[in-house]
Amino acid sequence: MKLLEDRIRKDGIVIGADILKVDSFLNHQIDVELLAEMGKEWKRLYQDEKITKILTIEASGIGIACIAAQQFGVPVLFAKKSKTKNIAGEVYTAKVMSFTHGREYDIIVSRKFLTADDNVLIIDDFLANGEALRGLIKLVQDAGARVAGCGIAIEKAFQPGGDQIRKTGVRVESLARVLSMDENEGIVFTD
Amino acid sequence: MKLLEDRIRKDGIVIGADILKVDSFLNHQIDVELLAEMGKEWKRLYQDEKITKILTIEASGIGIACIAAQQFGVPVLFAKKSKTKNIAGEVYTAKVMSFTHGREYDIIVSRKFLTADDNVLIIDDFLANGEALRGLIKLVQDAGARVAGCGIAIEKAFQPGGDQIRKTGVRVESLARVLSMDENEGIVFTD
Repeated sequence: MKLLEDRIRKDGIVIGADILKVDSFLNHQIDVELLAEMGKEWKRLYQDEKITKILTIEASGIGIACIAAQQFGVPVLFAKKSKTKNIAGEVYTAKVMSFTHGREYDIIVSRKFLTADDNVLIIDDFLANGEALRGLIKLVQDAGARVAGCGIAIEKAFQPGGDQIRKTGVRVESLARVLSMDENEGIVFTD
Repeated sequence: MKLLEDRIRKDGIVIGADILKVDSFLNHQIDVELLAEMGKEWKRLYQDEKITKILTIEASGIGIACIAAQQFGVPVLFAKKSKTKNIAGEVYTAKVMSFTHGREYDIIVSRKFLTADDNVLIIDDFLANGEALRGLIKLVQDAGARVAGCGIAIEKAFQPGGDQIRKTGVRVESLARVLSMDENEGIVFTD
């Protein structure tokens, strides 16, 4: 998506070999007009799917998911990161390893809000190693629901998560795929 | 706001004397059409203010703030809850006591995104003791910016936060003000 790639080139900050800061428009300060255009693009890509729910994960996925949900006319459900033991029976849960924070945590959603009738679009801001996305996919599958696909803002295509998940048969649509990035040479996107 | 009050009466769950669960439409599963109506109401209330930025706090404020921001045509900035020491000089920070979780934490925003020129609308889902809201107000004031006011979805008017903050001269507009609630007798709103 050219609009997002241009914005990343203009306002994204590359630090070292694999940190891309987009906190001026995506995950600290948020440009809601950009989010609306991203939502329209996912709607175009998934127009043949009868999506019933959008699933994301706190915190930085929530804004993107809510504005995308307006395009689909469906509710958002956000998975919570939990440091406590899960409440037996009331939630679906998955373990997620965070490479950024160097620890594992549980993500949970209430069973009330994911059912076997759901056709779920999963939305998140970043895809790198794919840990969070695999956790979200597991939550949907544990509920007996269908994963219609994933909508990612920025995929670090030089990390393995996206391709690994596509190989399992899950559709992944990333609006910007970073092939390489470098503090001096800038950011190269895939075609 | 009648639409929100009706929804709380219909889908809110009162537990004990002071827990009101609205996780089916506001802070776990999210009804984005309801959020759009809430955003329009805050826009009506603050139409005479030239708002430049909406400030909220992760996680459950983000969706509400993003959809409200579409009405105002301004960016959202969300404060992060930090358990690590703040990065000296780069952030504004405030301490917030969480009664729900029984501990104190820091909230932070990057200095880059709040300036003395900003006229800020602060948005959050709940107002009870007012701890989070006081922290957000401090971040704005530390930046030399102006607090235009606060937009709250649900105020527990039987707890002191809202009135304490209004007494300091800060405008607080809560769309639903709960006067009392009881598992058996239901929820009473203020007029």
